[in-house]
Amino acid sequence: MSDQEALTSYLAAFIEGLEQAGIKDVVISPGSRSTPLALLFAEHPNIDIYVNIDERSAGFFALGLAKASRKPVALLCTSGTAAANYYPAVVEASLSRVPLIVLTADRPHELRDVGAPQAIDQIHLYGRHVRWFTEMSLPEKGNTMLNYASTAATRAVSEALGLPSGPVHLNFPLREPLLPQLDPSPFLKKNATAVKRELKFGRLELPKEVYLEIAEEWRGYEKGLIVCGPLDQPGFSEAIIELGEVLGFPIFADPLSQLRSGSSSNELVIDSYDAILKTEEVRLNFQPELIIRFGGMPVSKPLSLFLQNAKNVKQVIVDGNRSWRDPYHVGTEMVYCDEINLCKLVSKVIPKRDISTWLMDWLEMNQITKNVIEAQLHSESKLDEGKAIRELSRWIPEDSIIFVGNSMPIRDMDTFFHTNKKNIRIMANRGANGIDGVISTALGSSVHSRPLFLVIGDLSFFHDMNGLLAAKIYNLNINIILLNNDGGGIFSYLPQIKEPKHFEVLFGTPTGLNFEHAVKLYHGQYTRINDWESFQVAMIDAANYEGLNVIEIPTDRAENTASHRRIWEQVSREINKYLQSVEK
Amino acid sequence: MSDQEALTSYLAAFIEGLEQAGIKDVVISPGSRSTPLALLFAEHPNIDIYVNIDERSAGFFALGLAKASRKPVALLCTSGTAAANYYPAVVEASLSRVPLIVLTADRPHELRDVGAPQAIDQIHLYGRHVRWFTEMSLPEKGNTMLNYASTAATRAVSEALGLPSGPVHLNFPLREPLLPQLDPSPFLKKNATAVKRELKFGRLELPKEVYLEIAEEWRGYEKGLIVCGPLDQPGFSEAIIELGEVLGFPIFADPLSQLRSGSSSNELVIDSYDAILKTEEVRLNFQPELIIRFGGMPVSKPLSLFLQNAKNVKQVIVDGNRSWRDPYHVGTEMVYCDEINLCKLVSKVIPKRDISTWLMDWLEMNQITKNVIEAQLHSESKLDEGKAIRELSRWIPEDSIIFVGNSMPIRDMDTFFHTNKKNIRIMANRGANGIDGVISTALGSSVHSRPLFLVIGDLSFFHDMNGLLAAKIYNLNINIILLNNDGGGIFSYLPQIKEPKHFEVLFGTPTGLNFEHAVKLYHGQYTRINDWESFQVAMIDAANYEGLNVIEIPTDRAENTASHRRIWEQVSREINKYLQSVEK
Repeated sequence: MSDQEALTSYLAAFIEGLEQAGIKDVVISPGSRSTPLALLFAEHPNIDIYVNIDERSAGFFALGLAKASRKPVALLCTSGTAAANYYPAVVEASLSRVPLIVLTADRPHELRDVGAPQAIDQIHLYGRHVRWFTEMSLPEKGNTMLNYASTAATRAVSEALGLPSGPVHLNFPLREPLLPQLDPSPFLKKNATAVKRELKFGRLELPKEVYLEIAEEWRGYEKGLIVCGPLDQPGFSEAIIELGEVLGFPIFADPLSQLRSGSSSNELVIDSYDAILKTEEVRLNFQPELIIRFGGMPVSKPLSLFLQNAKNVKQVIVDGNRSWRDPYHVGTEMVYCDEINLCKLVSKVIPKRDISTWLMDWLEMNQITKNVIEAQLHSESKLDEGKAIRELSRWIPEDSIIFVGNSMPIRDMDTFFHTNKKNIRIMANRGANGIDGVISTALGSSVHSRPLFLVIGDLSFFHDMNGLLAAKIYNLNINIILLNNDGGGIFSYLPQIKEPKHFEVLFGTPTGLNFEHAVKLYHGQYTRINDWESFQVAMIDAANYEGLNVIEIPTDRAENTASHRRIWEQVSREINKYLQSVEK
Repeated sequence: MSDQEALTSYLAAFIEGLEQAGIKDVVISPGSRSTPLALLFAEHPNIDIYVNIDERSAGFFALGLAKASRKPVALLCTSGTAAANYYPAVVEASLSRVPLIVLTADRPHELRDVGAPQAIDQIHLYGRHVRWFTEMSLPEKGNTMLNYASTAATRAVSEALGLPSGPVHLNFPLREPLLPQLDPSPFLKKNATAVKRELKFGRLELPKEVYLEIAEEWRGYEKGLIVCGPLDQPGFSEAIIELGEVLGFPIFADPLSQLRSGSSSNELVIDSYDAILKTEEVRLNFQPELIIRFGGMPVSKPLSLFLQNAKNVKQVIVDGNRSWRDPYHVGTEMVYCDEINLCKLVSKVIPKRDISTWLMDWLEMNQITKNVIEAQLHSESKLDEGKAIRELSRWIPEDSIIFVGNSMPIRDMDTFFHTNKKNIRIMANRGANGIDGVISTALGSSVHSRPLFLVIGDLSFFHDMNGLLAAKIYNLNINIILLNNDGGGIFSYLPQIKEPKHFEVLFGTPTGLNFEHAVKLYHGQYTRINDWESFQVAMIDAANYEGLNVIEIPTDRAENTASHRRIWEQVSREINKYLQSVEK
């Protein structure tokens, strides 16, 4: 058996193992050392490859593919700094629990740490940010090694789908010559001796009596609150809403809880808590006795402070993935079991409670707040980021994805994207909340689902402009709502604004870029809107647009802040009026 | 003392420590957690800050600043994936021995690993790719802590300037509120109790008698070869040329050895070994008995193979920084001492040897090769990447920097940039040889020196387009010769080209981008040249152009390869003719 045969059969066995374990999509960045794996992936009849030149974008593109499809995705690059470029996406995947199989080609041992070109130390390259790392052996012949290679592939997928899911890293030392045999294709006939492996994953379940105890305890509280942060699991919406109805608790639903949209009843969903909780009287008079939390931390700062400052409260944190999600050290009970199962079992054994004053007040305050916001935005003729979200929610077609950038867009979604019956999936990178890689993650998410609308600020757009190349090369359909306030808008809401010295240089950071050039570079359609009528026209056009479509909304940082403050002040006045009326 | 006073005095002491230890330039990416450090850097009267939104570009920009100035440079970013974006530049700095002080702001301990936003595990974030990592304490008051902070700063610079130099990482947990006191500036009056610290670095020196032994041994060889890879140290050129003259050995000089340009005599410099060594007869008939290597591995593959296959040869590897630079395991003697000192001491004690046949043959073959190349390029009317380098070397002004991209440009520099009397410094990222971050490194290099010409391929240009923003914001002067063959040109020279299946998708990777849009985005001047006359005009214009100036040379991958092969074949024929003539 020649070296080439050993190379081919070993790596083909690995790739077969990946495919058997459910890998369909592989994102590849060009390079020399990774040649045999790249060619064999391209050759495999059931694997789709996406070539992405910039490894940083490639990492996030794979992240998006995996997030949207809820399936593991593999990534391949060559040796050297190429692999280091994956780091931001690897960190985000780790924190947002997305299964990525990161494959890096490497120089063989004799060329490491001896000044050879394109050789960096790739052992444990991503440190503790991967669930599993393994250094593969050099390709070798023989059934033992083929079995080892295909097992390693299945194992990689298994580790990536752990509790919680996340990235894994396999490093492949490869020696020249690097060309595998493609004729005949190694995937044409099945290897008769190959072992067929399957993965069957259990979920965390508590003993039956513990569910009953939990139910018994929860029904004893009247002033209860359900808080849902980011959680994107089919079936969760229905289960949590049933739980809320049975317990008679309001459900504070972060935009990424997936509870604000869709056909399930959302009458108990409180979507304006961020504005409501800015009013001190609410915080003082509406202290819950029980808080039940699901999902990651919600984006709202007022809500976080409310959870943090709640005194003498039972705070239950539910996580089917066994992480410690309690940044304020206020949790009194950690419940590690499948969220849907818990909701269903508890709902089943509790009789439905009548609507309480506690619940009524929250629903009333929520409605008042939404009315204020609606009235204020309705009269807003200037281009404003809050209104952009409201207009987006009006004109977005059914069954879309909204991918939301970090920093201000996700906060504006929280404030201005209210419950609706459209079936909208809302996605974002809320593991590390970075402004990096957002375009690529959205594009990866768009591959298997459309239409997709990305809402993003100009700095985040700038950070990942290279990601747009994938839209051109793979004819992906994406509508980008670019909120361009020429700089870092969020800092105008933070204490930094009080220190005018150095503010624009360090925090405002205007780039003065005309992004039309960037969009033209990638053959996209570019529209800069002037008023809300033209935005409506652009949104209607967007619903059926094929390709890259960028709709820029130019806004002003100072005016955005002022408009937000006006709304919050008006909400506070109206809430206080309501509180005085119920006191009477 | 308030929290704000503690924050201010502790971080100001740290920054004073950095400045005392020689830090002048700090590259900052905007963020919230890093606010107090950013504001204090901006406030320091002797520190220049450069704000760069994309942390990946920021890392390489700092690398360029440090490389060009040969001084350590600090980098600052906020918590989260921002810090992960530095990884490629950190790895490159580590391998190319560039001192970078990487400062990352972090959440305080109570907000780590508990699901808090923008909190990732930043402890040992860069693994073994930094020379030193330390987790700083939270800012605290008192002389002990001020002294600790300023010592940590000096220590950081000291570790970064180690043998060899490289990046260090300091992680700063910071708690809200994040605003320091700027009024009055903490840097206005010197802290009377502050300790003034100095760093004095020795260099490696051998005992006197060992230098004499080395001299005695080397003069015993007639067929000696000096090989200089990447090495950029003032004074080295003069010292190594003196050594070559005394020993009567040819000096094989990589473009990054800095030996091909400048006022020192370069009569012994062989600059065409890459083409010469492709001829088998040369490899067989010109076996050296002694090889003395300086600097990193040269880029030339034929030279690497020649070193690797040299039999029964004494191969001496000299490194003043104590690394193991022997990818082919052929070194028979490692000499760890200052290179310049070694050259000077050996030269001093050896009488100058007469010119040997060995030396004459090499000089003759070198001249023949250069004549062939010159003749072939002279008659080349098509736009070709080899000729682009030759034309660049003709028209480039004195005292310029050429920054060379990886992959093909550095190889073409090796083949086509010949000795000259212009004082040209040649720079590249040859630590990990990545195509990433090249624009930013070049721009960082341009800050303190000009004119600068960057020679770069289209994929590498694409990879770091975001880096161009620094040129716009800081009005930097850079001329970019963009060799646009629409894809990965190097693969046409590699075995991959023999496998046409999947070639264009995986290796050719044409982007089809019109980079004029990208240049316009950054308000640069863009010229696509059509013939060599227009290139000459563009180069004359470039010498005095202020700002970003991109000169695109469109080429064809297949034609480039064919033209290179024609030259190599013609060189081989002429070399063989010469060998036959001397045999007579």
